[in-house]
Amino acid sequence: MTDLTETVRSLVSNKRFSTLRDLFATMNAADIAPILSDQKESDLPLLFRLLSTETAAETFVEMSPAEQEVLIRGFSDTELKAVLDELFLDDAVDIIEEMPGILVPRILKAADPESRNLINELLKYPEDSAGSIMTPEFVSLSPQETVEEAIGEIRRTGLDKETINVCYVARADRTLVGSVTIRRILLSEPDQRIGEIADTNVITCQTTDDQETVAQMLSKYDLIAMPVVDNEKHIVGIVTIDDAIDVLQEENTEDIEKMAAITPSDRPYLETTVSSLFLHRIPWLLLLMITSTLTELIISHFTDKLSFFGPIASAMLIACIPMLMDTGGNAGGQSSATVIRGLSLGEIEFSDFFRVIGKELIVAVMSGAVLAIVNFAKMILVNVILYHYSGPDLVTYIVASITISLAILLTILVAKFSGSMLPMLAKKIGFDPAVMAAPFITTMIDVTSLLLLFGLANLILQRL
Amino acid sequence: MTDLTETVRSLVSNKRFSTLRDLFATMNAADIAPILSDQKESDLPLLFRLLSTETAAETFVEMSPAEQEVLIRGFSDTELKAVLDELFLDDAVDIIEEMPGILVPRILKAADPESRNLINELLKYPEDSAGSIMTPEFVSLSPQETVEEAIGEIRRTGLDKETINVCYVARADRTLVGSVTIRRILLSEPDQRIGEIADTNVITCQTTDDQETVAQMLSKYDLIAMPVVDNEKHIVGIVTIDDAIDVLQEENTEDIEKMAAITPSDRPYLETTVSSLFLHRIPWLLLLMITSTLTELIISHFTDKLSFFGPIASAMLIACIPMLMDTGGNAGGQSSATVIRGLSLGEIEFSDFFRVIGKELIVAVMSGAVLAIVNFAKMILVNVILYHYSGPDLVTYIVASITISLAILLTILVAKFSGSMLPMLAKKIGFDPAVMAAPFITTMIDVTSLLLLFGLANLILQRL
Repeated sequence: MTDLTETVRSLVSNKRFSTLRDLFATMNAADIAPILSDQKESDLPLLFRLLSTETAAETFVEMSPAEQEVLIRGFSDTELKAVLDELFLDDAVDIIEEMPGILVPRILKAADPESRNLINELLKYPEDSAGSIMTPEFVSLSPQETVEEAIGEIRRTGLDKETINVCYVARADRTLVGSVTIRRILLSEPDQRIGEIADTNVITCQTTDDQETVAQMLSKYDLIAMPVVDNEKHIVGIVTIDDAIDVLQEENTEDIEKMAAITPSDRPYLETTVSSLFLHRIPWLLLLMITSTLTELIISHFTDKLSFFGPIASAMLIACIPMLMDTGGNAGGQSSATVIRGLSLGEIEFSDFFRVIGKELIVAVMSGAVLAIVNFAKMILVNVILYHYSGPDLVTYIVASITISLAILLTILVAKFSGSMLPMLAKKIGFDPAVMAAPFITTMIDVTSLLLLFGLANLILQRL
Repeated sequence: MTDLTETVRSLVSNKRFSTLRDLFATMNAADIAPILSDQKESDLPLLFRLLSTETAAETFVEMSPAEQEVLIRGFSDTELKAVLDELFLDDAVDIIEEMPGILVPRILKAADPESRNLINELLKYPEDSAGSIMTPEFVSLSPQETVEEAIGEIRRTGLDKETINVCYVARADRTLVGSVTIRRILLSEPDQRIGEIADTNVITCQTTDDQETVAQMLSKYDLIAMPVVDNEKHIVGIVTIDDAIDVLQEENTEDIEKMAAITPSDRPYLETTVSSLFLHRIPWLLLLMITSTLTELIISHFTDKLSFFGPIASAMLIACIPMLMDTGGNAGGQSSATVIRGLSLGEIEFSDFFRVIGKELIVAVMSGAVLAIVNFAKMILVNVILYHYSGPDLVTYIVASITISLAILLTILVAKFSGSMLPMLAKKIGFDPAVMAAPFITTMIDVTSLLLLFGLANLILQRL
């Protein structure tokens, strides 16, 4: 990629435009876009003129909003119209939504009147709704048509549709009654009616449905497109699989960001400004820092009493705190990540609450026991190698080791329990489960593990 | 969903089979499968007989391997053959790969000879390769054919193909020369040659390519299917978008699991056994627990010297450890999650190394400064409310607060630097960047932050 960027740069500076035109003709829009992004901004409109109209439109869609703005400002009205005519309407709407207000009237003016009306309609749907990602460019057939008539109609109008693989069957008032694949049409007799061969059991969504739900339905039912209907069951558009994949990938990124205590942003990393990165991260860091102040108060409170336990035990208790907290945080993070992912893939529902908690608790007992035993063995080994305690000191050391190992076991139980329960509860009460991930769970478990550690120390060590 | 499960259960126990048949006829395979999963295992073969052949095959694909095994054992040879005939070959191969060896000969025997040979070929491709997810059921046209002949051929053979939306143009020796959409064919004149209307600039992958790379290419180029070629450029199959989505979702789940210190498994949560959950989690918990033992040694080493700093400062240093570690871990986790996701979406390349590190360091300075200042302000406030130190004690308190705040600033710098650098280095040397996520980064930063804290204390507090 980088080599081609250099090649293009030198071809531009040597004004070898016909070579550039031939080069671009062998390439795909998705590969041309990143190369153009690396060129001088002022060369962009010039370079665009070397692309075929179709490739130009496809490449335009792949550019960043900032670059699209430069291009729109650089285009003549005729060029802008040529690109707009080639764009699918859903892409045009996405682009217009990102443009500064001052450019929008010029863009709308360049669109033909029919597209302009449709674009204006699409702009009204709420962000992240099915309406906002659908396109009105689908093939609509009448149930009374014959297969032969339908093929004729597809031949006449198909070029402007985003997909002809699935056609939708609607009455004259646009009420959706079924769908029929182009495959089915081609395999049927020319005089059969579309209504006879259509599949009436068609999966639809509403304009106001959440885009993530719609994308997951496309994935679940292995669909290439899904019709979007309004409240009166009139078909108003379709959501195509390529847009659904983009939505799924965006939602995955959002989940990962939330799980890492970052407010999601919708731009690629390298296009995000430093101040935007900062603003998306600092609130969570601050919140979590302030929250973990609680651990300071707990430790301050107990350190006063540590002298009761004698120097060996109190040093051991202090020294084990980070290990205890990390282990608890990791164990809780495993559970919460698993449950959050299961919820977002629809593999886990709230009705599975007790099954999930049950499973996690058994895993917690198993993991906690292994970790506690390994920790105890390690502490004994450390004494053999480093400390060589004996007599009453050895007894204190062993009892303190047991106390710490028990604290690990109990911390793992609490960690796995809250790590699996909190995301499900969050979902139930309408919050995003992804915020109940490692950073939050860790802070919560820090406090719990300290209370468990000092509580156990009070119970066990004070009896020595 | 749960209500329908109950309804089906009571219909089964009342032997209302014709009602069940009518009910299933209105439903989609993706919705029938989970309901059947909740029925008694012994009823499964019976319930399958109520589905139409096509729905039965589609539902079969959606069931878990364990349920598929029950069904295959329960099917007569004729029933098994009927389901196999309806399956696409790539799905058949996926199912066979999950079955115990003893069932495989019976399944292969039920397939027709041609399918059996193709299945045997597909079974040879390595796991997670393009070859293992492709299907050989695509439409292949000759460049010499006319559009009319091609339409005739599609009508004759299209029913068995996984997609007819894109047809592939190959010479007699199967060398791929281009692709042509059904849309393009329908919109062309009947006497045009396929070779003339085909797009020769076709994006392909190799049988041995990684399935994730292939799935991302389908998404990047907005393709519905991608041809898979062997070393001699012969087309051997296609990867379709529905399988690509499944691969993308699986890989996303794997990334999230690795980022939460879990060895990935490929089964849905509720179908995973407790012992499998345990085995996928315990190695990382153990490894990280043992690694964080290092923090115990550091604290033990320094607590001996804490008395130099006086009681106020030493208590403050001990108490702030969890807060310091959590804040560092969260900051590092933010950077690593962002970079890991950027790498896996292809938004960040290794060549962006210095740009990424530069950005992260600026964000680190900004975040570190804010967190250090807020922490200092908070500590002053705590003194006003809780401790009321004055005179030399107040000086010690303020100097210790400054020490801790500086440790936060430096920890954030190290955290963001290593959180962004390590995933990129891991990728460069061929490891999965996702293992360089929060749990690993946290453990590493724990050690660093302790060394920074005690180092600064030595430098600053000892001068008091």
